[in-house]
Amino acid sequence: MTRAPALPTPARRILEGDRRALAQAISAVEAHDPAIAPVVGALYSHSGKARIVGLTGPLGVGKSSLINALLKRLRAQGRKVGVIAVDPSSPFSGGSVLGDRIRIDRPAGDAGVFFRSMASRGHAGGIAATTRSVARLLDAFGMDVILVETVGSGQVDVEVRDVASTSVVVLVPHLGDEVQTLKAGLFEIADVFCVNKGELAGADAAAKDLTELAGLGIGRDGWRPPVVTTSAPSGSGIDELWAAIEAHETFLDTSRLRDAGERRRLSREVVQLVQERVATHLAAALESEPDLSTILDRVVARELDPQAAADLLHSGRPRRG
Amino acid sequence: MTRAPALPTPARRILEGDRRALAQAISAVEAHDPAIAPVVGALYSHSGKARIVGLTGPLGVGKSSLINALLKRLRAQGRKVGVIAVDPSSPFSGGSVLGDRIRIDRPAGDAGVFFRSMASRGHAGGIAATTRSVARLLDAFGMDVILVETVGSGQVDVEVRDVASTSVVVLVPHLGDEVQTLKAGLFEIADVFCVNKGELAGADAAAKDLTELAGLGIGRDGWRPPVVTTSAPSGSGIDELWAAIEAHETFLDTSRLRDAGERRRLSREVVQLVQERVATHLAAALESEPDLSTILDRVVARELDPQAAADLLHSGRPRRG
Repeated sequence: MTRAPALPTPARRILEGDRRALAQAISAVEAHDPAIAPVVGALYSHSGKARIVGLTGPLGVGKSSLINALLKRLRAQGRKVGVIAVDPSSPFSGGSVLGDRIRIDRPAGDAGVFFRSMASRGHAGGIAATTRSVARLLDAFGMDVILVETVGSGQVDVEVRDVASTSVVVLVPHLGDEVQTLKAGLFEIADVFCVNKGELAGADAAAKDLTELAGLGIGRDGWRPPVVTTSAPSGSGIDELWAAIEAHETFLDTSRLRDAGERRRLSREVVQLVQERVATHLAAALESEPDLSTILDRVVARELDPQAAADLLHSGRPRRG
Repeated sequence: MTRAPALPTPARRILEGDRRALAQAISAVEAHDPAIAPVVGALYSHSGKARIVGLTGPLGVGKSSLINALLKRLRAQGRKVGVIAVDPSSPFSGGSVLGDRIRIDRPAGDAGVFFRSMASRGHAGGIAATTRSVARLLDAFGMDVILVETVGSGQVDVEVRDVASTSVVVLVPHLGDEVQTLKAGLFEIADVFCVNKGELAGADAAAKDLTELAGLGIGRDGWRPPVVTTSAPSGSGIDELWAAIEAHETFLDTSRLRDAGERRRLSREVVQLVQERVATHLAAALESEPDLSTILDRVVARELDPQAAADLLHSGRPRRG
């Protein structure tokens, strides 16, 4: 309240509900335009109200259809919804593949919905940072719920926990080997399991398996992830899925784990941002500053090993020897 | 020569050709056992002689069969070969899946071959670091060539350039959309293209397409990536593949780009190692040191945005306002 004496114009416009200013700011975040940093920074104090829900799972499990169904349900309740789809198959196109990739049925002119597809390839390590910034813009814009869709192979999976307060892992019956190998990893991520394409044979068995596993106490912090079976085309199970998400959000409040989770996420974010600054600064300094360049010379000459060089650069002294 | 007064015992054993000491050291590197760091450090000055060749490409293109064929060829020439397979489908098992995943025909008792399968899942960002250390152990052990196999979806792709002096991108005819989207990325990675499964229809067309693209001058530093068609089962094209790899290695020497490449890789490695140290130190300090903890408190209270907090922590002063 005593802060932000002069709000940058784009920030003010976003707070006033200007969709175009929001879209431009999101594009600038995606393009890593340095001019947008003060805008995102100024809006930070206006964010923190929206619920951020992540949906992750392998390609082809129907996450987009689920998001579509959740969106309809939330809009029917009058909630404003932002959707961020992190799309690993669109390496270059940014938001431009939107029309093809996500078939969101947005009633023309519905100001309560904003969606954005973001490329993930080529931004290793930066997906969570960009997603967080975009989520904050949507949050400050006034969205009540922000749905984040990420593909669950490799890293993105895990990173969804750095962004969302509730993470839904979406699977389908008979996913086979993939689920078997992922299983332990899934339980680290999932606050809610969703078995989508529930109309397929094997859905009940898959849900039963997951429920049994969840009951083995692999759940974290006293929360046992519920398992919900859905069928996006018919809308079956969507109410139950949202109820499970809300139950987890309520659990975060009553258990007082929300603040701890938020603090952990912000700590990780700040650490990652410092790491980026260190890397940028150091990579340049290793070329330009004679003292540091000498250290790299010694590594190249195999007189100093890289770990010892890193110790020298980090703490000013070798850790060993 | 004037260095390393007291070599740690495992390091000495590895230099003496003790396979068991090598295997144990590799396991320790994979387990991130801090006790192995001095061993890897001591062997660093004994590494740098082996040629490190990376093979990357999507799952199912036959990289393991190619490696098998290259291995036979190199052994027939009397060269000692290390193989490192970075396997994204083995999240927990480390080297134990070896037998299933890579069907390397190692003649019993052939001391000139050493192979190792490493899990990649769950080590985001750390694959290159571990692979580099394992490659150095194999190098110090006396291997002439080290073949590194990584799966080319997402990150590992790019990281192979941080490890290998020659990177081979392996594709198959009619890979379709995947190649189309990857294309620009492939040219950033590939020193050599290999169209494997050359017996399939469309192989000639695929090789022609790639050759034309390579001719458009997308190649780096004056090197135009050659395109080789192979068929691992029959061994067809394997001689040509190895010749293309050697041609690139010769190019690195005659163009004097080898040193520049090595310096760039080592600089990136040192920067990454410093980043790790910063993250470990800072994550702890944000909890334990009152001054830093206060900064995190202000971020949690939304009084200070994460970017401003990172500026404060990195440079001691806010970058803006």
